[in-house]
Amino acid sequence: MFQTIDHNNKGFITKGQIFQLLEKRGLNTTDPHIQSIFGFLNRRAKDTKIQTKINPEKITEKDFNTIIKNHENFINKIAEDTLIIPNFHKFSAQIEAIFKKTAKNKTGKVATYIPQLAQIDPDQFALSLCTIDGQRLNLGDYNTHYCAQSTSKPINYAIALELHGTKKVHQHIGREPSGKSFNEITLNKAMLPHNPMINAGAIISAALIHPNKPISERFDTIMKTWEQLSGGQKPGYNNAIYNSEKDTADRNFAIAHFMREVGAFPPNSDMKDALDIYFQSCSIELTSHNMASVAATLANGGICPLTNTKIFNLETVKNCLSLMYSCGMYDFSGEFAFTVGLPAKSGVSGALMVVIPGVMGIALWSPRLDSIGNSARGIEFCNRLIEKFKFHNYDNMMIEETGRTDPRHK
Amino acid sequence: MFQTIDHNNKGFITKGQIFQLLEKRGLNTTDPHIQSIFGFLNRRAKDTKIQTKINPEKITEKDFNTIIKNHENFINKIAEDTLIIPNFHKFSAQIEAIFKKTAKNKTGKVATYIPQLAQIDPDQFALSLCTIDGQRLNLGDYNTHYCAQSTSKPINYAIALELHGTKKVHQHIGREPSGKSFNEITLNKAMLPHNPMINAGAIISAALIHPNKPISERFDTIMKTWEQLSGGQKPGYNNAIYNSEKDTADRNFAIAHFMREVGAFPPNSDMKDALDIYFQSCSIELTSHNMASVAATLANGGICPLTNTKIFNLETVKNCLSLMYSCGMYDFSGEFAFTVGLPAKSGVSGALMVVIPGVMGIALWSPRLDSIGNSARGIEFCNRLIEKFKFHNYDNMMIEETGRTDPRHK
Amino acid sequence: MFQTIDHNNKGFITKGQIFQLLEKRGLNTTDPHIQSIFGFLNRRAKDTKIQTKINPEKITEKDFNTIIKNHENFINKIAEDTLIIPNFHKFSAQIEAIFKKTAKNKTGKVATYIPQLAQIDPDQFALSLCTIDGQRLNLGDYNTHYCAQSTSKPINYAIALELHGTKKVHQHIGREPSGKSFNEITLNKAMLPHNPMINAGAIISAALIHPNKPISERFDTIMKTWEQLSGGQKPGYNNAIYNSEKDTADRNFAIAHFMREVGAFPPNSDMKDALDIYFQSCSIELTSHNMASVAATLANGGICPLTNTKIFNLETVKNCLSLMYSCGMYDFSGEFAFTVGLPAKSGVSGALMVVIPGVMGIALWSPRLDSIGNSARGIEFCNRLIEKFKFHNYDNMMIEETGRTDPRHK
Amino acid sequence: MFQTIDHNNKGFITKGQIFQLLEKRGLNTTDPHIQSIFGFLNRRAKDTKIQTKINPEKITEKDFNTIIKNHENFINKIAEDTLIIPNFHKFSAQIEAIFKKTAKNKTGKVATYIPQLAQIDPDQFALSLCTIDGQRLNLGDYNTHYCAQSTSKPINYAIALELHGTKKVHQHIGREPSGKSFNEITLNKAMLPHNPMINAGAIISAALIHPNKPISERFDTIMKTWEQLSGGQKPGYNNAIYNSEKDTADRNFAIAHFMREVGAFPPNSDMKDALDIYFQSCSIELTSHNMASVAATLANGGICPLTNTKIFNLETVKNCLSLMYSCGMYDFSGEFAFTVGLPAKSGVSGALMVVIPGVMGIALWSPRLDSIGNSARGIEFCNRLIEKFKFHNYDNMMIEETGRTDPRHK
Repeated sequence: MFQTIDHNNKGFITKGQIFQLLEKRGLNTTDPHIQSIFGFLNRRAKDTKIQTKINPEKITEKDFNTIIKNHENFINKIAEDTLIIPNFHKFSAQIEAIFKKTAKNKTGKVATYIPQLAQIDPDQFALSLCTIDGQRLNLGDYNTHYCAQSTSKPINYAIALELHGTKKVHQHIGREPSGKSFNEITLNKAMLPHNPMINAGAIISAALIHPNKPISERFDTIMKTWEQLSGGQKPGYNNAIYNSEKDTADRNFAIAHFMREVGAFPPNSDMKDALDIYFQSCSIELTSHNMASVAATLANGGICPLTNTKIFNLETVKNCLSLMYSCGMYDFSGEFAFTVGLPAKSGVSGALMVVIPGVMGIALWSPRLDSIGNSARGIEFCNRLIEKFKFHNYDNMMIEETGRTDPRHK
Repeated sequence: MFQTIDHNNKGFITKGQIFQLLEKRGLNTTDPHIQSIFGFLNRRAKDTKIQTKINPEKITEKDFNTIIKNHENFINKIAEDTLIIPNFHKFSAQIEAIFKKTAKNKTGKVATYIPQLAQIDPDQFALSLCTIDGQRLNLGDYNTHYCAQSTSKPINYAIALELHGTKKVHQHIGREPSGKSFNEITLNKAMLPHNPMINAGAIISAALIHPNKPISERFDTIMKTWEQLSGGQKPGYNNAIYNSEKDTADRNFAIAHFMREVGAFPPNSDMKDALDIYFQSCSIELTSHNMASVAATLANGGICPLTNTKIFNLETVKNCLSLMYSCGMYDFSGEFAFTVGLPAKSGVSGALMVVIPGVMGIALWSPRLDSIGNSARGIEFCNRLIEKFKFHNYDNMMIEETGRTDPRHK
Repeated sequence: MFQTIDHNNKGFITKGQIFQLLEKRGLNTTDPHIQSIFGFLNRRAKDTKIQTKINPEKITEKDFNTIIKNHENFINKIAEDTLIIPNFHKFSAQIEAIFKKTAKNKTGKVATYIPQLAQIDPDQFALSLCTIDGQRLNLGDYNTHYCAQSTSKPINYAIALELHGTKKVHQHIGREPSGKSFNEITLNKAMLPHNPMINAGAIISAALIHPNKPISERFDTIMKTWEQLSGGQKPGYNNAIYNSEKDTADRNFAIAHFMREVGAFPPNSDMKDALDIYFQSCSIELTSHNMASVAATLANGGICPLTNTKIFNLETVKNCLSLMYSCGMYDFSGEFAFTVGLPAKSGVSGALMVVIPGVMGIALWSPRLDSIGNSARGIEFCNRLIEKFKFHNYDNMMIEETGRTDPRHK
Repeated sequence: MFQTIDHNNKGFITKGQIFQLLEKRGLNTTDPHIQSIFGFLNRRAKDTKIQTKINPEKITEKDFNTIIKNHENFINKIAEDTLIIPNFHKFSAQIEAIFKKTAKNKTGKVATYIPQLAQIDPDQFALSLCTIDGQRLNLGDYNTHYCAQSTSKPINYAIALELHGTKKVHQHIGREPSGKSFNEITLNKAMLPHNPMINAGAIISAALIHPNKPISERFDTIMKTWEQLSGGQKPGYNNAIYNSEKDTADRNFAIAHFMREVGAFPPNSDMKDALDIYFQSCSIELTSHNMASVAATLANGGICPLTNTKIFNLETVKNCLSLMYSCGMYDFSGEFAFTVGLPAKSGVSGALMVVIPGVMGIALWSPRLDSIGNSARGIEFCNRLIEKFKFHNYDNMMIEETGRTDPRHK
């Protein structure tokens, strides 16, 4: 990397040159992982202890090697442009073009069952992506908070898996698409929810998160997980949404009572508390900027690419992606799996979280929903993405295709 | 490769040495692709015209370069052991160990609805695999013919896609799991079969294959496709099965009449002919040796690795794998997708075709079926395969896992 | 009766006076029962042997007593106006008023799935009624033949009951409303048709009619039963309808194949023959005049009031009426039972057969069907009938109601 | 009647002779109707004002005529043994024989979902019948109180009909059998409960009873109706049952939430209050003695035969009987309608209320339930009743049957 920057062989490089290269590669110097390597260059002498001797405006090769110690592999990828998405600026431009085309879509309607959603400016549109190497792109209203809603379902499911393992969790929740409408009051043949991506299953996921602890601690576990998934950024919480959700939740109460009656709840769990945690989880708020980090963590086998922290086990992520793929898009799941071929989860706020396993996570948000309840622009963006890039689960990577490219490093 | 073999620098190598290396890599000298390069070494002088001057027992480096001309890339992979499965013999031993463990499974019952299936020796067990580089392994009864049955469904669907394209085919067949039993007399909300992997959809696939041609020509198209997929080996045909199937096909007649009534058949198609072609397709017979080539072709983006012939387009293969993944294992499809995570198709004969995209195809056959109708040993083998190898669709390839390996070349 | 007619004490009465009184009571001298008593008065001397000495224009009381011997009870009812509907002319006028109001209804559409039904003049409207004492009223197109269609279902069910008894018949057919659409391809939990009033059940009824005899004899049994039910009038048969029905019967073939597959057919029965008999039964043609006699026989416990012949056992009639009440009006059965409260069976030809148990049978025919498939005018007539008369199954006969009367003799 | 008693022409009769005849006819001197005529004979002089001059031990014909003034018709029936069941003692003996046979049935299990039901002595068996003329028979544990449970459904439905009329009530409740299990969480196509005899519909009936009044007044309306239906006897109330019902009512809460969500509740009604009234109604307790009066009132067109008070309109009763007939016996309703052919309603306490329209009401109680949830002895009794008597809805009254009699006066 030193040589890459110092192509004129001056013998030293500057902080500015480093940051310029990082930015060119899509890396953000404020992200924790980059901060941990280069962050001190921005701080005053008194703030840093170890590397005080290095002059940010005149970094020698030796200094540089000290700085990047233990990160050689990552730094080489940066230098050689072999991060998972090489030529990130070209890729960003392609994504932006798709984003702009999609922004013209004004079809669909915002959800109106609670006033908090009904009053949202329907024209908003945010896209953030984050690769497994931490490369990031933000477009549109990426700094606006929106409600997680059903995008909280895979996260609570993952937390339940971490706490209990696959076997125990699936003694209480099925793992197949239902063939039924997402909010139908129906259980599978074993009298369990069909899967954790529908309301019934998500209520059981909630019930499985520390059932013996007080609600406040249980919800704290969930919030801390979101914070870690967001690369250390605390999520917001919309209490008005929570109150409204609870007041209009007849169908969820119906399914919860039904489940309690047939004994679908795990032992020692409390139905009302589970519902409460479910409603609270739906009321968590994020920016697409942070949601992209969440999705990228799932793309990266459970390790947040912004912090290199392991948050979920491989098996947790595998299960989560499997069910997002088959069941994540309400009644459109089968069609989405066929045409787009990516694990994803949508929410009634217009949220959409898409995972390209081993490559990146994408967070979209646009409040207008199609008739099935997915963000109309979200769906269009995904279709355009797959038209352009070989990201479909069953795309063949070895055979070239006219008009479609695979932008990932091989 | 010359150097690899001539490691003592004799200046020449022998036919035997070449064939020994090929075999070590899992390559079969009788397969068309290998034949086309090295086959002439086995023939007498008068059989070959071009390369008569080369002495199979004393091949110089110059001779060798002549032989491998246009195949340098493939030959290098052989020399460097960088075919998709390096160290094929180790991998083969691992597969064989799983095969032997699975062979102990004597659970399940052979299908009895027709005498031809009821009378089959239930202990038979065959496994063949074929990688996208043509590496092959055969175990057990791999030379015995068995009926394709429902493994013909993805092939007829693929043929229909080749003839009409995705859009037109799916005006007549859905593309989602049904959430219903595989042979239920039910259609989706659009009054179409739920997908081409269930009987209703397969009857429509059959209806879409050259509806205006005579049945004999239509079936010929299907047989020729199987021949190509098998690397040029003609499939067999079991007329007794065909007759029995037709005689016991009340459910298929029921669903066909129902579909005709609601207008689900494509224009100009004949219900009875479609059923006939459907029954005939089920009666095609293959060895697992050849079925592995069929699966490998799907793993290889539609190009048969034994002949390098392009049989299906990328989109055809993508669609086919998508629906095998979500709908290929009868009522067990969702569970199989979750736990095994691979596109597969089973048949009532005990046939099971598994595709590891970009890696290999596996053909299994063992007649005893579990309660859902899948080969009991087939299912067990797949479970053991995934316990050992990182072949699950949502396995993360970049993070190592204790006890599970990724045998593919990276 | 003699006194009733001879109120001036002339000492004799005339044929004309007798016939005038009969007519006043709603009795038809051409009906077999009346013919058997008074018919000879119309014939020339040579045609009759026994009563030649009686002068039709001068019948003494002694003569009269000879004539009515063995019929005293019936004759007294005539004289005293205590037949089941006293003051028949008033009642007829009330029915005619309803008929005329109903005739204004031009809603609905004729069935078009076969040309024979599509081409029928949709404005036709026939009403015939026949009491359990043989009193008759005919209005509109009562002499036009129309197809029995589904009104043949209760008759074939009744024939099956006569041949095998309740227990055996209902080993093969259920006896409850299905809660499903009448032609859905669905069976009950025991994998039997829900009841004999839907297509599936009617096919099984057909299968149960002399399964070991040739089709011609089996159909002959059916035709002879209709003849008896019609008071000796031979029904017609529309072969063009039969051919068309058979050609457009995909749903019936579907349900029949489905039933054969699950073993719903009785032992030794042939599916195709059963379907054939089913289609033929649908193609029987009657006038409303004769259909009213069919309905009256059911109202009269299985004895045809025109001939006093016992055709069905009490248990047969009881079963038949029970299921006509709960299942006879397609998807409207429940609503019809609630609002009209009478056993009835409709057909796609616009036929409607209504039974007022212990009182009368009514046959209506008007080809325009409502969206559920019942004759639009037929339904309206029944609603108006119940508004006016206390004929609902759960009307209380002992408490008077404003605006509604019970015209039957008490 | 005077003559009937005074057959020796003594010129006077005694109180004892009158009461003996009443008893012989099945009439109970303590019942209000009889009391109002003959009750004063039992009282001391000072208790009665009008008839003080009559000597109960020496009643002359003139006295007698004074006593029965305005009741001549009823008294004549008593004298002539032409009450609806003549020869009541013979009939009673026949019923008692059936009762004794049925008592041997020890199959079935008491309901155990709440302790109050689980702890009941399962061997108890009560039968009471009351004719439309007030003739009564009591057998077994007829003085023991048991919970109304679902037998409260037709009563609340009737109250709702009285308050709003057929049209309005059925804007909120369907009126057909559902073809589904009685407590399935399902609504009809109009998103309304299928009928008022299932839980969903009964909750809506409760919601329709004075929705704007306080719960206490609403329940009071219900209790007062039961009191009137019982001939003035106040029903009991089991608060422990109420508490238990409420605590175990997940399915009812589920269906209520579901209904509220889809807007099935009437405007201005409160879901929780409706549930409360529903649970309270289920907790009303009666003896079979009083329940027979309830059933008899329905048999008598809404007029209680013990008091001659009009409680329900004819239309209310008609609707109620229609739906008891088609939907009153849970999943056995269709089979019961076919085989027994009478309107009836069962409850999980083992209660069974049967109506023979125009004849009598029968109340049965035996706690052991069959697998469908109906009283095992209750069902057996009904079957035996219909074997012996021509009480089936579609029995033909004019044709005699071997082994079956019609005991009613004609």
